[in-house]
Amino acid sequence: MKIAVAQLNYHIGNFEKNSELIFNAVDRAKKEEADLVVFSELSVPGYPPLDLLDRIDFIERCAATVNEIAKYCKGITAIIGSPTINPNSEGKKLYNSALAVSEGRILFTANKALLPTYDIFDEYRYFEPAKEFAVFDFMGYRLAITICEDLWDEQDFDNEFEKRRLYTVSPMEELAKEKPDMIINISASPFSHSKTNIKKGIFKGKAEKYGIPVINVNQTGANTELIFDGASMIINNRGEVWKRLPFFEESLVTFHAGDLIAGSEAEGDTDRDPVELIHKALITGIRDYFAKTGLKKCILGLSGGIDSALCLTLAAEALGPENARAVLMPSRYSSTHSVSDAIELAEKLGVAYDIVNIEKPFTAFTDILGPVFKGWGNDVTEENIQARIRAVILMALSNKFGCILLNTSNKSEAAVGYGTLYGDMAGGLSVLGDVYKTEIYKLAQYINRKSEIIPKNTITKPPSAELRPDQVDTDSLPDYRILDAILYQYIEQQKPPHRITGDNIDQETVRNVIRMINTNEYKRYQAPPVLRISSKSFGDGRRMPLVARY
Amino acid sequence: MKIAVAQLNYHIGNFEKNSELIFNAVDRAKKEEADLVVFSELSVPGYPPLDLLDRIDFIERCAATVNEIAKYCKGITAIIGSPTINPNSEGKKLYNSALAVSEGRILFTANKALLPTYDIFDEYRYFEPAKEFAVFDFMGYRLAITICEDLWDEQDFDNEFEKRRLYTVSPMEELAKEKPDMIINISASPFSHSKTNIKKGIFKGKAEKYGIPVINVNQTGANTELIFDGASMIINNRGEVWKRLPFFEESLVTFHAGDLIAGSEAEGDTDRDPVELIHKALITGIRDYFAKTGLKKCILGLSGGIDSALCLTLAAEALGPENARAVLMPSRYSSTHSVSDAIELAEKLGVAYDIVNIEKPFTAFTDILGPVFKGWGNDVTEENIQARIRAVILMALSNKFGCILLNTSNKSEAAVGYGTLYGDMAGGLSVLGDVYKTEIYKLAQYINRKSEIIPKNTITKPPSAELRPDQVDTDSLPDYRILDAILYQYIEQQKPPHRITGDNIDQETVRNVIRMINTNEYKRYQAPPVLRISSKSFGDGRRMPLVARY
Repeated sequence: MKIAVAQLNYHIGNFEKNSELIFNAVDRAKKEEADLVVFSELSVPGYPPLDLLDRIDFIERCAATVNEIAKYCKGITAIIGSPTINPNSEGKKLYNSALAVSEGRILFTANKALLPTYDIFDEYRYFEPAKEFAVFDFMGYRLAITICEDLWDEQDFDNEFEKRRLYTVSPMEELAKEKPDMIINISASPFSHSKTNIKKGIFKGKAEKYGIPVINVNQTGANTELIFDGASMIINNRGEVWKRLPFFEESLVTFHAGDLIAGSEAEGDTDRDPVELIHKALITGIRDYFAKTGLKKCILGLSGGIDSALCLTLAAEALGPENARAVLMPSRYSSTHSVSDAIELAEKLGVAYDIVNIEKPFTAFTDILGPVFKGWGNDVTEENIQARIRAVILMALSNKFGCILLNTSNKSEAAVGYGTLYGDMAGGLSVLGDVYKTEIYKLAQYINRKSEIIPKNTITKPPSAELRPDQVDTDSLPDYRILDAILYQYIEQQKPPHRITGDNIDQETVRNVIRMINTNEYKRYQAPPVLRISSKSFGDGRRMPLVARY
Repeated sequence: MKIAVAQLNYHIGNFEKNSELIFNAVDRAKKEEADLVVFSELSVPGYPPLDLLDRIDFIERCAATVNEIAKYCKGITAIIGSPTINPNSEGKKLYNSALAVSEGRILFTANKALLPTYDIFDEYRYFEPAKEFAVFDFMGYRLAITICEDLWDEQDFDNEFEKRRLYTVSPMEELAKEKPDMIINISASPFSHSKTNIKKGIFKGKAEKYGIPVINVNQTGANTELIFDGASMIINNRGEVWKRLPFFEESLVTFHAGDLIAGSEAEGDTDRDPVELIHKALITGIRDYFAKTGLKKCILGLSGGIDSALCLTLAAEALGPENARAVLMPSRYSSTHSVSDAIELAEKLGVAYDIVNIEKPFTAFTDILGPVFKGWGNDVTEENIQARIRAVILMALSNKFGCILLNTSNKSEAAVGYGTLYGDMAGGLSVLGDVYKTEIYKLAQYINRKSEIIPKNTITKPPSAELRPDQVDTDSLPDYRILDAILYQYIEQQKPPHRITGDNIDQETVRNVIRMINTNEYKRYQAPPVLRISSKSFGDGRRMPLVARY
């Protein structure tokens, strides 16, 4: 039996596009004489469909598309992912299903048993967990078909407070009773730079434990904040990676099941540089946000600082320099290098830019607010006005020319609320909102690895918001190495304050940083969607109360 | 045995305040000679604690507070709600527990079995469902202690696609085997104007089915978007409402268990006017957002239209007119009545106001953007600039004077994206974002029921954004009666487009409205938290993909 693994980039709710992708892969698999072609979890609607799953019309379109794919599979069988209606009178209305289809019929259905409901996952919101398990007999092979989390009954979390065994059932233990020859795992597993090796360990571990191959099929491409890295794994019966599909690319690979079961020699898989993967993830995230919303062009404010420089470089690579547009918006407090560094970068990238000085509207606001503010001195209000004027200008260009404003805030400043709501926090998509400042520098160095693209001065100068004379970030914040070490322990690892430690970290700084994080939840509530590259990103994966005291 | 029901207003994570509230209620219950005092679900941390539950330090504070309360209960027993650690090696790390405590000890623990994970609820994100059930033997009575959803094994949803039986287990069926004398249900059940009678029906139904009293204890007060109406119910063994506690107020009521079991005469409960309840809910929502964030003063833009007029009236009632501040920001397109109507209202309410004309910054932006926009005509860009200038002004006052900006958008315009991001969509709290325009008029009439507070002209004039000459809302939108009827069927009822019908509703209008709803998800993603009064509010209860096509 020959199997094809199809790692594709689906678009949520775009049934025409998704079925076309699937049809093309079926054609190619047939050409390569595959008997079975395997697609990823919820490949029919695209993942994650979120509350579209609450709509009967959406579920009916899934069912109709499944039928079309079943009819299209002539002389071949496909395993596809789709929600299906739970026929029982009790429980959630849907199952998250893997369907084996061929010749117009559904030959076999496996429903997901372990429904991740933590971080960005909300699967128990929609799906009833499966309680029955059976292998799929296909061409003399007994296939244990599992769906993503079904193999994650044991896992390590960054938050050590979580249990290693999050579920009271192990689907593979149940399926093992039926003596399967092979495990197939269809998944929609988002990228996180700290999870790449953990994921590999999960699949290798299952192959070793049961002495049979594991075929994992992941989706690739991004849907808003979630970026899927593909990197599907074909693992032989000894738990060796026979082949790993590419990261962040569509791909189709075929192989003989018998060879893999017999333990054919493995190609292996070398560990990837996390910075290289983060770079690819962000490019994918930008590219797909635009491709899937149907817009081509982006705009951003280029300050001469490292965050906007990195963001523009990534955008120019993802969308083409002709689709990126930069706006330089100097004020009375801008340094001369802020403009010259920005121009240097835009010209190097071949990105068009405008210079719009914010002095006139700043004076206008000062004038009209003068009578209201009489007797009150200058404070952060005037700094925020400048940031908001820049947002008005950027949004005006966005509206006029039909470009999406990219937000350039990093995770460190988003964490401590060092940003202006409706000012530099504006944008349709936050490109760097899950990248700590110390990682920003690593990415900039990675981009400059062959030749200097981001100006050296942009990388070496002390970070500054330039909203008042001689301002630098360290006026209000600890050094970014200290800050990021505290943030990681508090946000990703969820350590109690007294257990947050490290070089040059004292408890007073820890307390101040945590206070800043906690009192700025209201700002992040209104932030744009953030491209997620870590195990705990701001946005839907981190839900904090706004009016709490803690 | 005498029981006290304590309906209180908890603050998430504010253990000092919550335990003080509980101590005071314990004192009062003892004074009234109660043997048992019952508090609501998760009363120790406040509901909903969201991802604070992922933090070990938070859970340790819950446990410490439970101990303090247990010690405080001398000569009396309290039933309190708290997360507790799941001692098993498998499953979610926590239970959602009801704890009977007295004399420094935990006498009994009941864990929640049905974990709502839909709409605004995410309980399976944190909690393991209970699988064992037992009654609490207390002073000769067998008490079936249940937690909120545990009694909701059968319920009707506005979305008819949902199953009536969402769970495969019925806690009361299990507990009934132990022949309880009484059902106690501790809950944290948020207000929705369409659920008031459904809720009553659930509790009455259980009392009738098992022939025993039901004591329901709900929390009151708001935590950000969720408003809890209290309205706890004491129901006798015939399923009659012996007493219903007040809506949106703290209250403590005592009674003899024996009387209720014997079927003592019921006071009954009259149906409430939904408009009156919505009014109380919004006042509660505003008041507690400020009280619990520790800020006193609000600001809003007063346009002369009905939305901002209603919003200011509610804010003045909730916070006192001395804590509300209005800003009138006329432009070249503003009608004369917009200013005069606004002034009339502010003066009637006794609210201070400023008039800040936006012409100067508008001209400044037009000037600096002129060279960039050369060759491009006026369009929605210039309308948005005006809306954003107003946000800059309001946020400047908010920053300078430490007031929270109230957002005045209604649910109808939020639904179709008739608003400017970082403009009139700005604010710390959306007061009316779950109130349809047709309901706005009903609320305005309710407020004017005794005397004219909101000027008649504000209510009767055609709604307009006044962003270009002679603009009215119906230039771009259907009549609000038609629009709201479509929105309700699509958003609350989740009907497929072809089944959306009604007076003067044609399929083309339905399609256009749905297209507007779907293409504006990105705007709502960045909207402020919305006070929730319906069964499907924008915000955390409605999670739609941004890059989908459907």
